[in-house]
Amino acid sequence: MSASIPHGIPTHWYNIAADLPVAPPPHLHPGTREPVTPEDLAGLFPSGLIAQEAATERYIEIPEPIRQAYATWRPAPLIRAREYERALGTPARIYVKYEGVSPVGSHKTNTAIAQAYYNAQDGVTKLTTETGAGQWGSALSFACAQFGIDLEVWQVAASYHSKPYRRYLIETYGGRVHPSPSPLTEVGRELLAADPDTPGSLGIAVSEAVEVAAADVNTRYALGSVLNHVVLHQTVIGQEAVEQLQTAGETGADAVFGCAGGGSNLAGLAFPFLREVLTAGAETKLFAVEPAACPSITRGEYRYDHGDLAGLTPLLKMHTLGQDFIPDPIHAGGLRYHGMAPLLSHTVELGHVQGLAIDQRDAFAAGVEFARAQGIVPAPEASHAIAAAAAYARELTEPEVIVIGLSGHGQLDLPAYHSYLSGDLDSTAPQD
Amino acid sequence: MSASIPHGIPTHWYNIAADLPVAPPPHLHPGTREPVTPEDLAGLFPSGLIAQEAATERYIEIPEPIRQAYATWRPAPLIRAREYERALGTPARIYVKYEGVSPVGSHKTNTAIAQAYYNAQDGVTKLTTETGAGQWGSALSFACAQFGIDLEVWQVAASYHSKPYRRYLIETYGGRVHPSPSPLTEVGRELLAADPDTPGSLGIAVSEAVEVAAADVNTRYALGSVLNHVVLHQTVIGQEAVEQLQTAGETGADAVFGCAGGGSNLAGLAFPFLREVLTAGAETKLFAVEPAACPSITRGEYRYDHGDLAGLTPLLKMHTLGQDFIPDPIHAGGLRYHGMAPLLSHTVELGHVQGLAIDQRDAFAAGVEFARAQGIVPAPEASHAIAAAAAYARELTEPEVIVIGLSGHGQLDLPAYHSYLSGDLDSTAPQD
Repeated sequence: MSASIPHGIPTHWYNIAADLPVAPPPHLHPGTREPVTPEDLAGLFPSGLIAQEAATERYIEIPEPIRQAYATWRPAPLIRAREYERALGTPARIYVKYEGVSPVGSHKTNTAIAQAYYNAQDGVTKLTTETGAGQWGSALSFACAQFGIDLEVWQVAASYHSKPYRRYLIETYGGRVHPSPSPLTEVGRELLAADPDTPGSLGIAVSEAVEVAAADVNTRYALGSVLNHVVLHQTVIGQEAVEQLQTAGETGADAVFGCAGGGSNLAGLAFPFLREVLTAGAETKLFAVEPAACPSITRGEYRYDHGDLAGLTPLLKMHTLGQDFIPDPIHAGGLRYHGMAPLLSHTVELGHVQGLAIDQRDAFAAGVEFARAQGIVPAPEASHAIAAAAAYARELTEPEVIVIGLSGHGQLDLPAYHSYLSGDLDSTAPQD
Repeated sequence: MSASIPHGIPTHWYNIAADLPVAPPPHLHPGTREPVTPEDLAGLFPSGLIAQEAATERYIEIPEPIRQAYATWRPAPLIRAREYERALGTPARIYVKYEGVSPVGSHKTNTAIAQAYYNAQDGVTKLTTETGAGQWGSALSFACAQFGIDLEVWQVAASYHSKPYRRYLIETYGGRVHPSPSPLTEVGRELLAADPDTPGSLGIAVSEAVEVAAADVNTRYALGSVLNHVVLHQTVIGQEAVEQLQTAGETGADAVFGCAGGGSNLAGLAFPFLREVLTAGAETKLFAVEPAACPSITRGEYRYDHGDLAGLTPLLKMHTLGQDFIPDPIHAGGLRYHGMAPLLSHTVELGHVQGLAIDQRDAFAAGVEFARAQGIVPAPEASHAIAAAAAYARELTEPEVIVIGLSGHGQLDLPAYHSYLSGDLDSTAPQD
């Protein structure tokens, strides 16, 4: 069967922890504040993922069924953005690593497939999760359909009602979607009793999904970013990009830009380049680009904090704006998270990755300029990375090689582009 | 520069006319009913496209800038649909040729890029066109942005108001969109005076776009299907597929299925396979799959007819339901055309291509089954081809190689999938 898997799809995930001079701080139990044990996590995650969360080996083999599933859209293209180079008037050679070719149009599928696989291996028959705009929910619904797992998604009520396309996508794959808060959980019933018209929040939706998963022995919970195993799965992005750059005749990258919400997209792209820095003497600058409205790296503290509002998750050492931080509404829903992946935060602290904050208006301006030059309408999240890379490229007087992580397409975000072009970007941002 | 164009992107378009035993009937002037001359077409199309419309050579070189633009998304993947094979329980090996990776998500970009290029070569500064659901309008807007051409699109008013996403896509690339009928043209003003709330039609939108193009010496008109030069440009699909099948270890295809509205998608996929039949002894069955609501091949007549409602276009020898045929509303807007590409109609008459009609409910059922198995939500147009291929594959008792043209993704058609899953497919189809 393996003969059918295209050349260029990585055979292993890459674990940056193995190459870092300082081990990343462990996650802590929310009650005892001692390092979490595999047993602590067994009610929420399957054994394969728990092992990966604390893995120390450099490479972890990607199981054959996952690579087979990846083959539907991977290797994702690395595109030389010649027209955008001309539009910018830069001497740089700009490459975009484009994850929008995945079935749901974003990088989230890379970990969704892996998570569904390991749950299926453990005999899990149902998964629960939360979603905001729906990128993660639709990716997991796709993955669950591939591995025969039922899925229930709690979607922030404001998005459920105002942005239905990704909900329809979840349903097309067979997943069930509930507006959150819902009458199906204790926390949801309490909140609805207090305010039947509450728009909901990601923190509430997490609590509902966790409550349902914890109550049933065959049900587990799935998270789409932040955790080490999610970052691990996303390293297929950067490993492919490193190889594709070589195929394109480049010796390496001078600068890599990716957007960072929970951090897994940027880390997945950047860590294989950081491996070259740490182990092969490469000189590559790595930039994590976050929205000015939610600047966890550039304005947050580096400390232990909870991953959710209610404090149910383990304590994670990360850059955080505080578990109760509510970012201003912006259209890049995937970047509205108070914390940052602990592995990424750790590499920032070690000086290997630099944070940059971009205003959403500058992101949309860059997205439109990129679309008109290159054809692809970027997801608003990815437009933040493009804006930062463009500012960098415009300053260059000598050729450099720039890689931009284009985490997804923006076809389901076209109303936000319309708002930008109409001049009413701020007033139309979703409130979840 | 050419070193940067990926291997696998064709260097030439393939002209089926060179290999057919009988020359295709010429287009006729609508007034004289004599064969049209290049001069007759000079007011509407640029010289490069007029030459291609009557070309007799087997291969026409693809200019370098077009191949460079194609390189953003081509070669488009040929995906072995293993999970779908399992879902169908067929011994067939099924491959899908996936055009949804293009910047706008459909095959329309293949000809849009070429048409924008040849217009730019002739110094044309503005193009006009019509669009229904918006696939063609968005593809041409993308292409015009690449080559620095202004674009005005007349979109059927019902779609303009009820399905705004592709309008936003056209605008994001810089194109201007008018609901049709519009007060900008004589024909539009007349129709609005008679009924200010008319939903419009494709025929009206063509008339408006042609009227504006004819009135300005630097403006030309562009058509997204039917004509010979459009079919020619789409042959990149089939040429890639023939080569990719060989790379996958297959000696050829037993059956090829594609959806047919105006016919350029199916012809673009099928004609390079037909070349192998005509010149190399291949035995490949070719199927043009149309909607039961608009069955031009399976229920129409083969005769000369106009391409538009008002009778402004040349007379084309084709399978037609009549220039005044109004199909029932269906969600696959790209298949609602009264006629069929003359080149495709000619090969049907010669016995090389067979028409099949599929009900839209069967198409959506197949689309959902395919999405759950394989991940990609097909455009409703492409789901017609999948449904026909699935019926064929289920009957097989011996292995065969099947190729399905997956002309685009369905992410902007998710409300139609939602309607199907909710059981109200028919009542929600757009009226344009």
